[in-house]
Amino acid sequence: MVRQIVVIGASASGIEAAAAARKKDRTAEIILITQEKTAGYSRCGLPFVIGGHIPSFRDLVVYPPAFFQMQKLELRTQTKVRAINTKDKTLTIQTKENPTTTQALPYDVLVIATGAEPYMPPIKGKEKAGIHSLRTLEDGEKIDAAIKSGAKSALIMGAGLIGLELGAGLVERGLKVTVVEMLPQILPQFLDADMAKLIQQHLEEKGIKILLNTVVEEFLGETQVSAVKANGQVLEADLIISAFGVRASTQLAKEADIALGETQAIKTNARMETDTQDVYAVGDCAEAPSLITHRPTCAQLGTIAVREGKVAGTNAGGDYSLFGGVLASAVTQLFDIQAANTGLTQTAAQRNRIEVVTATVSSKTRASYFPGAKPIKIKLVVEKESKRIIGAQIVGGEEVAQRINGLSFAIQQGMTIQELAKADTAYAPPLCETWEPMVLAAEMILMKLR
Amino acid sequence: MVRQIVVIGASASGIEAAAAARKKDRTAEIILITQEKTAGYSRCGLPFVIGGHIPSFRDLVVYPPAFFQMQKLELRTQTKVRAINTKDKTLTIQTKENPTTTQALPYDVLVIATGAEPYMPPIKGKEKAGIHSLRTLEDGEKIDAAIKSGAKSALIMGAGLIGLELGAGLVERGLKVTVVEMLPQILPQFLDADMAKLIQQHLEEKGIKILLNTVVEEFLGETQVSAVKANGQVLEADLIISAFGVRASTQLAKEADIALGETQAIKTNARMETDTQDVYAVGDCAEAPSLITHRPTCAQLGTIAVREGKVAGTNAGGDYSLFGGVLASAVTQLFDIQAANTGLTQTAAQRNRIEVVTATVSSKTRASYFPGAKPIKIKLVVEKESKRIIGAQIVGGEEVAQRINGLSFAIQQGMTIQELAKADTAYAPPLCETWEPMVLAAEMILMKLR
Repeated sequence: MVRQIVVIGASASGIEAAAAARKKDRTAEIILITQEKTAGYSRCGLPFVIGGHIPSFRDLVVYPPAFFQMQKLELRTQTKVRAINTKDKTLTIQTKENPTTTQALPYDVLVIATGAEPYMPPIKGKEKAGIHSLRTLEDGEKIDAAIKSGAKSALIMGAGLIGLELGAGLVERGLKVTVVEMLPQILPQFLDADMAKLIQQHLEEKGIKILLNTVVEEFLGETQVSAVKANGQVLEADLIISAFGVRASTQLAKEADIALGETQAIKTNARMETDTQDVYAVGDCAEAPSLITHRPTCAQLGTIAVREGKVAGTNAGGDYSLFGGVLASAVTQLFDIQAANTGLTQTAAQRNRIEVVTATVSSKTRASYFPGAKPIKIKLVVEKESKRIIGAQIVGGEEVAQRINGLSFAIQQGMTIQELAKADTAYAPPLCETWEPMVLAAEMILMKLR
Repeated sequence: MVRQIVVIGASASGIEAAAAARKKDRTAEIILITQEKTAGYSRCGLPFVIGGHIPSFRDLVVYPPAFFQMQKLELRTQTKVRAINTKDKTLTIQTKENPTTTQALPYDVLVIATGAEPYMPPIKGKEKAGIHSLRTLEDGEKIDAAIKSGAKSALIMGAGLIGLELGAGLVERGLKVTVVEMLPQILPQFLDADMAKLIQQHLEEKGIKILLNTVVEEFLGETQVSAVKANGQVLEADLIISAFGVRASTQLAKEADIALGETQAIKTNARMETDTQDVYAVGDCAEAPSLITHRPTCAQLGTIAVREGKVAGTNAGGDYSLFGGVLASAVTQLFDIQAANTGLTQTAAQRNRIEVVTATVSSKTRASYFPGAKPIKIKLVVEKESKRIIGAQIVGGEEVAQRINGLSFAIQQGMTIQELAKADTAYAPPLCETWEPMVLAAEMILMKLR
């Protein structure tokens, strides 16, 4: 009998799940459903199209229709799932062509990859038109159109990764950009305050105005938002952009009595199964445990989405695969500076009542005498009892991402700070220093532990 | 009583040893002896000065006289050690000022950091003048002077790292360069033939003529060498450069009955002690075990030299430190391409009778849609029984060194290929692909193991 595998969502995790299922089950009918017009594009690339680094939004489509055809995946775009009926194993769906009727779509295995949606706090006037966000291709096109129609200034609410990447892109397009952040630092989920400060300085040098400890209180304007009131002050801008963060899209799951976890994302086990038979959840809508705290997390990163998708798809296709957990390694490029994180920040460790020793080392990305060397700063977070590395943050001009990957491997393998201090590293004058700064940071921690 | 710690050699490992000893023993007299005029310069930088990347040879001096003064290290340049007398714990030394007499220098602890010297095979005519090599600052200055006097072509014998980095530098200075290599591939100690081929193509595109399987048989010319005979063919060049490799400088140790090991470098234990009481050996003249085969190696890399120096110096200073062993991680930049290696190549594994599975993945250094992405190729070498990674090679346009460092951490921590396939990696469109190619290579090996 031909099995029917249905995936709700056709972005990173959903497509990865479908493709993995196809590898394991050559005959199954595999259907992907998305309410979006375009499937298989890179959301992470959106700020870089706006910034002008990538010529067109269309370039972000990494899975063109031909991919789905070749993999024999049936893609249904502009289709809404209205309900998941776990008892009779069907979905209630609604197409764009027939918006007044619904139909039932049976599944043998369901993968929920509904992603996340921009979060809007309960701010006065939030129902007004003209508040942008940046989650979908259409969102990007709207911002781009506004710039082309003459927008000269932007106010971004939220200093997370998306807000700041977008802010940098808007500056590159010639706009005057102000970022408003409620917390006393930028990138609060991503970096400790000391490391975030370095990024903030760079952004300010590039002309972004950053207002910390600033709470948005009201959206101002007749029907169209033209300004916000924040900390009592009126901030006007041609473009008002909400980047308060995203929340897991769990409405469908909740209504179908599929359990959510403590992070308010969908609860999963190591196979990425939900608490409901034959239903998996992956990507930005799903929980997975932290490799360090072992508590559920919902890191909402593309790399985690594809890994979870692959595991769920492999299982959905009848094979066996486990998802180990997340370190939430992430990296960003903002103008000329790169910032990355893996594992826990010092702040996150303290929140989890883990005692840590930290050290920060400043170095260069090339031999001191080699022209073009850029500064780099590495912070290590080490658990006090085991002396294992549990987190790392890097801010620097180049070669940041792969250092974080190396430290991610180190954390994953339970590397102690002593082991890192003795690690064998490569060296060439145009590419790095003789003493790798990651190793120097480890030595600094050893000294603190003595 | 004030201890006297004497270090023979004032390059990477010797200086690191002296500085580490100083940290542990604030009162000891610490004396560094070198026969060179200049101490504390980066040998690895020499090809890049010749290539014009670094303005002057003087820029390579990373430890200026002020460093030695500040650390209270007595530096004696242009001083030759004629003999090590282990019984009465003295050195016989000869200064430039008094070349006809020798004097005794007592030591409580001795660190041998004599380095290595260019190797010249027993080729007919090798005593003739005008055969260059590149080991010291003076060697570099001579080559530079020859170029300034109008040398238009160079013949480099040996396609190892130094030969090729120098070859690239000479091309950048406008010379016509030919490299002659006895073996059927370039970089035989560094890369497998398949990976070396990629570098060879790049070098050839940049104009270097590479002659493989070519044996130098004779140096031609009256008293001054003006050509070599290789495979029966006469190859003329304005600059004839020997880059056959280096050999550990062990003459002094041998004469003092300090044991050499199977690699013909000085035998050491994990404290970097020789078989002789109170005598340490570090750097290019010393052996250390491979972390993989556990057999002695003599990798002769700057990063290993400083690590060994630090361990020996810490012990010499009265504290305790062990050197774990080497993976011989190394990286180089040749024109627009970077190449790196850690652990064993496939060839080296086979030579050690280790059964391996390998996989090579081609990818890009940025998201496929992000302009400026450069190709990158990663080869993993995995031990068949344990499924642990034991080696990796990378050739690519950027972000190569830190990937090798990450894989070095992985190997050091005993990471299995399954663990690498599940690793948590960072991603941002301008900096890397969603699926990190190291992870993809691991998956390819998993498929082969199935």
